Amino acid sequence: MDTAAKNRSLRVGILGAGRIGRIHTQILTRLGVKIVAIADPSTERGESLAREFGVSKFTTKTEDIFNDPSIHAVLICSPTDQHAQQIHQAAASKKHIFCEKPIALDLAIVDAAVNAVEAAGVKMMVGFNRRFDANFKRIRQAVVEGEIGSVGMVRITSRDPSAPPISYIKVSGGMFCDMTIHDFDMARFLVGAEVEQVYAMAQARDPEIGDAGDVDTAVICLKFANGVLGYIENSRVAAYGYDQRAEILGSKGAVSCENNYPNTVTVSTGKSIARDLPLNFFIDRYMEAYKDELEAFVEVCLNPTATPPVSGHDGRQALKLGLAATLSMKENRPVNLSEFDTPRMVGRL
Amino acid sequence: MDTAAKNRSLRVGILGAGRIGRIHTQILTRLGVKIVAIADPSTERGESLAREFGVSKFTTKTEDIFNDPSIHAVLICSPTDQHAQQIHQAAASKKHIFCEKPIALDLAIVDAAVNAVEAAGVKMMVGFNRRFDANFKRIRQAVVEGEIGSVGMVRITSRDPSAPPISYIKVSGGMFCDMTIHDFDMARFLVGAEVEQVYAMAQARDPEIGDAGDVDTAVICLKFANGVLGYIENSRVAAYGYDQRAEILGSKGAVSCENNYPNTVTVSTGKSIARDLPLNFFIDRYMEAYKDELEAFVEVCLNPTATPPVSGHDGRQALKLGLAATLSMKENRPVNLSEFDTPRMVGRL
Amino acid sequence: MDTAAKNRSLRVGILGAGRIGRIHTQILTRLGVKIVAIADPSTERGESLAREFGVSKFTTKTEDIFNDPSIHAVLICSPTDQHAQQIHQAAASKKHIFCEKPIALDLAIVDAAVNAVEAAGVKMMVGFNRRFDANFKRIRQAVVEGEIGSVGMVRITSRDPSAPPISYIKVSGGMFCDMTIHDFDMARFLVGAEVEQVYAMAQARDPEIGDAGDVDTAVICLKFANGVLGYIENSRVAAYGYDQRAEILGSKGAVSCENNYPNTVTVSTGKSIARDLPLNFFIDRYMEAYKDELEAFVEVCLNPTATPPVSGHDGRQALKLGLAATLSMKENRPVNLSEFDTPRMVGRL
Amino acid sequence: MDTAAKNRSLRVGILGAGRIGRIHTQILTRLGVKIVAIADPSTERGESLAREFGVSKFTTKTEDIFNDPSIHAVLICSPTDQHAQQIHQAAASKKHIFCEKPIALDLAIVDAAVNAVEAAGVKMMVGFNRRFDANFKRIRQAVVEGEIGSVGMVRITSRDPSAPPISYIKVSGGMFCDMTIHDFDMARFLVGAEVEQVYAMAQARDPEIGDAGDVDTAVICLKFANGVLGYIENSRVAAYGYDQRAEILGSKGAVSCENNYPNTVTVSTGKSIARDLPLNFFIDRYMEAYKDELEAFVEVCLNPTATPPVSGHDGRQALKLGLAATLSMKENRPVNLSEFDTPRMVGRL
Repeated sequence: MDTAAKNRSLRVGILGAGRIGRIHTQILTRLGVKIVAIADPSTERGESLAREFGVSKFTTKTEDIFNDPSIHAVLICSPTDQHAQQIHQAAASKKHIFCEKPIALDLAIVDAAVNAVEAAGVKMMVGFNRRFDANFKRIRQAVVEGEIGSVGMVRITSRDPSAPPISYIKVSGGMFCDMTIHDFDMARFLVGAEVEQVYAMAQARDPEIGDAGDVDTAVICLKFANGVLGYIENSRVAAYGYDQRAEILGSKGAVSCENNYPNTVTVSTGKSIARDLPLNFFIDRYMEAYKDELEAFVEVCLNPTATPPVSGHDGRQALKLGLAATLSMKENRPVNLSEFDTPRMVGRL
Repeated sequence: MDTAAKNRSLRVGILGAGRIGRIHTQILTRLGVKIVAIADPSTERGESLAREFGVSKFTTKTEDIFNDPSIHAVLICSPTDQHAQQIHQAAASKKHIFCEKPIALDLAIVDAAVNAVEAAGVKMMVGFNRRFDANFKRIRQAVVEGEIGSVGMVRITSRDPSAPPISYIKVSGGMFCDMTIHDFDMARFLVGAEVEQVYAMAQARDPEIGDAGDVDTAVICLKFANGVLGYIENSRVAAYGYDQRAEILGSKGAVSCENNYPNTVTVSTGKSIARDLPLNFFIDRYMEAYKDELEAFVEVCLNPTATPPVSGHDGRQALKLGLAATLSMKENRPVNLSEFDTPRMVGRL
Repeated sequence: MDTAAKNRSLRVGILGAGRIGRIHTQILTRLGVKIVAIADPSTERGESLAREFGVSKFTTKTEDIFNDPSIHAVLICSPTDQHAQQIHQAAASKKHIFCEKPIALDLAIVDAAVNAVEAAGVKMMVGFNRRFDANFKRIRQAVVEGEIGSVGMVRITSRDPSAPPISYIKVSGGMFCDMTIHDFDMARFLVGAEVEQVYAMAQARDPEIGDAGDVDTAVICLKFANGVLGYIENSRVAAYGYDQRAEILGSKGAVSCENNYPNTVTVSTGKSIARDLPLNFFIDRYMEAYKDELEAFVEVCLNPTATPPVSGHDGRQALKLGLAATLSMKENRPVNLSEFDTPRMVGRL
Repeated sequence: MDTAAKNRSLRVGILGAGRIGRIHTQILTRLGVKIVAIADPSTERGESLAREFGVSKFTTKTEDIFNDPSIHAVLICSPTDQHAQQIHQAAASKKHIFCEKPIALDLAIVDAAVNAVEAAGVKMMVGFNRRFDANFKRIRQAVVEGEIGSVGMVRITSRDPSAPPISYIKVSGGMFCDMTIHDFDMARFLVGAEVEQVYAMAQARDPEIGDAGDVDTAVICLKFANGVLGYIENSRVAAYGYDQRAEILGSKGAVSCENNYPNTVTVSTGKSIARDLPLNFFIDRYMEAYKDELEAFVEVCLNPTATPPVSGHDGRQALKLGLAATLSMKENRPVNLSEFDTPRMVGRL
């Protein structure tokens, strides 16, 4: 019950005042964590955020945060192409790191960042927030506690309500590294094993997305090292809202979850028995998960013996799966993850 | 988006540092409202709460709060028998009032308190938090928007996971005024009309509760002024958890809600298709409702034209229903609410 | 596995070729039972039914059936006012009897019919088909096997999709004896005890029904001899279809059922998550129950030691509850079932 | 209303008195169809079936059925390796044919049988009974009526409660041609298009099945000619029962179904909110579908202009998909269906 008081002892800096930076600022404020400063290239956006949550310092220079010795930890909420550089800076200034996913879109860059963190002896947690969702945690618990026996097959259904703008898609690194990367992490998390082989079948239902060189609909098969089979199903467009489900079949049963809804109400009329649409926006769907994620990060920062529940290795493996699925789709063949252990293959992409 | 900043302009005092006082303190802190002081007869309990949420002032004297001109509003979270007196004091010191239910267990006392509030020109909101629950709000919305035609019948199922201690039951005023009072308010809220007649059939399944002169299981029939029929079903003990549902039948359909669960997960084994128990604790079940309730109160305090969504009249009517149900049960006959319009009947209880 | 062959040894006669007579004829044909003859005052209706199911004999005279010594049993599917007379005739000719509910609308007449059956040493089963429904059987099983501890409260929700014609309502005996009688039987069946007291609150939402002296919406409270509380909720009009549910709260949990649907399909669009309406027609909803009911009757006829799962006593008790609810509504007071043990009270209705 | 009478004009013969022959005999009896004779190599089994359902003629010689000019149609319920030969015989004797799936395990044999049927001018319907299931029909209806826009992706989950005996597995033709063949047909039925490419990833979780050269767990990806993506997920073992679900994502929404249950009852205790297991046995699950299937066949036989809702072409295409999936798994590569258009590839398997 002294959690609130304890949280007030942690001093953090926020790098990036965009949508996700705003969410984290709000949550940290509610947790009572001391936000020392917010950095963002846009003065308007950064000052507005600082004002709203009573953060006393705003700066356009990230160095102001790295150089402030009173700050224990940073949250990297900047665009992806700045993540790795900021990880190196934070590690150099001995601050713990919370980094939004993905660390980078290049395996070599990810490796260097992860190594720098380890060398500096600071802790880094990667923002796979869905691991903290009550539904997925409960599925993992069923697996760990043997409620369904040994795992045989895992399914992940992950559909966005609508596609991002084409301008975003063009720089996103492709659907598998941008969107499916969450599902790859989820598959590893739920099964508790590494994937050995990937096969991806995909389509662009929306011709604009196809013209941009990307896909919007896909099925990805996974073969895990322990023999488990997995399949991820993605769509950029689900007219009824954000669709995030998983199901695991084990030797003694199965465990699955449904979507989250704004209420439990059913309206019955002469036409149908209907309920409202599931939560449509990822922030609504995962707000509790974001909160639990940051609570875990606060604990990681304050407790010397705590290790990050989502590590740099996790970030690396999810990216590798995204790259493998991309290659599989392009060459229409199953791809072994081991192909990415040689520099040549990495270059090939 | 400036809500957080706006909230920081409101200055409140908390009267009572018990369970509900703690909840409200936590929520107000997260909303950014300035809690100036907390008052409680127990120094240990009050100081601990103040320390946890960084409230700078604690006092054992409620006058310190009423006499502080910088405080705009008070939250009355004290035991029921102090509510009315504190309402009078708050009204006298021109502070807006949030009062936990019930205002009192005596209609004359309630009337005097409500009158004092009106005379003072301050605003008072009564803590029927369930009106802010997403499920019940959605049911009310279906009624208001005509989704199910004209209302014909309403059912409220309301079961506690376990009975309170016998010591509490003895001073509670009886199940109908203590527990069912929430359901009476809900019935009025959902239907949007007043009740004319009540009939209550009840039992004490637990002999200890019966020995204490109370019941733990009941069905209460309601006849509304507009002809709608209602029935409330209560139990002090539901082994599977907190059970709070409602259903309305209209001329064009029906609307109902289910309980809230900690997750949406189903575990299928060779024995059953099962999910975890619904949220068991009223604070978990209604945490969002408590938050929305206080957000509404903050708005009521800050916006001169805003009126309380739950008024003193609402508090009075729910109590009257509790008293009528108690009388109906004792005399095993339908009771008209009009019987409570004469002082004689009130004295009879 | 020789059931089909065994069934062919039973020879029955059908009294009444209306809707329910047609259902029973169809089911008995499928079960392989030998239908010797069908009797109905309408030659057209009776011959058409006989032709459709290959029944070789049709007659307008019920005596042809009672006097046929090759017939073991009769199914009384005639209008209610002929039931008692046909029971007496069947008993006199030593045939087993399946009688549709209600036996009659007058307790004295029911008593005489039940006594005649007992005196004749034949078996009589009353058509409370819902006892054979898989959902309600499963609820009863949960009670019997102690899955929910000792029973505390039972709820029965029973709503028809639409009201019958006013002409029917005028001769129906009133909603409680016509429609609720099924629910009274269900309450006794599920709880396994007798009811001592009844209180009914009712309304005519449809003015035409009110003008005909009947109601269409009601809540009926029941107090069982063993202290259990019950409440039945009825409506003649549920826009979304036939609504038949029950719920029991016990000391260790609760058991409830939902409606039956034509399929399990959900359609998710940008507007709602919807499923088709529940089964709308009572014959669709209870077809399996009708089949299981007649299978039970066939067993009762063929097995000398088998006793009817629904007895004449059951028919009598359900009627008594219907009469008590009618009286309670008229006099707006709780009514004890014992009031019906004196001839005077019966006459009063 | 004259359906029963009309059905009695159809005269059929049953080839095979095993499990499926028994089901069809029972259903045809209930439909009132005249079963002239049953043929089976086992006198004991065949006579027992004939006796139970009152079929007057039993024979061990199938010729007795083909040569009986009074028989209009035959139901081929014999082992798979006799299907093709019996189709040729039935076509030669100008009888309509209902043939259980698969027609054969060799494409050339299937082609010859289908051609013989067409040349003889009789009608043949293949026993993909699941097309007649209320859930899958409703999904197909949603697609056809545009309720979910244009189809983008289809998922079929198909799991058996337990694996068949190893002795059966060894002669089954492999899981894809034995079990998944139903799902391949379902995928074609639901989408209404042909599949162009297949990729299968599979495992034997049960080592005994692996030793027998087969698999028990699989994910199969499908690419349809119209660009739709599909995936089928199979398991030979689902501890909780027979699991048969499907889901389609379209441009305007999604449609999915759940399993069928023996009742709709929920039991809530201090441990869980649970319901009974889904229907465990395929005959229970699909009994209504089997009935509707045979009703469709009876209509095909009696109505000269009716065409079979499941044709020989459908049987051929499903087999081709089974063979393609088998090849894909063996060679771990995507397989184009066009590979099976050349005799060489067929021989290669």
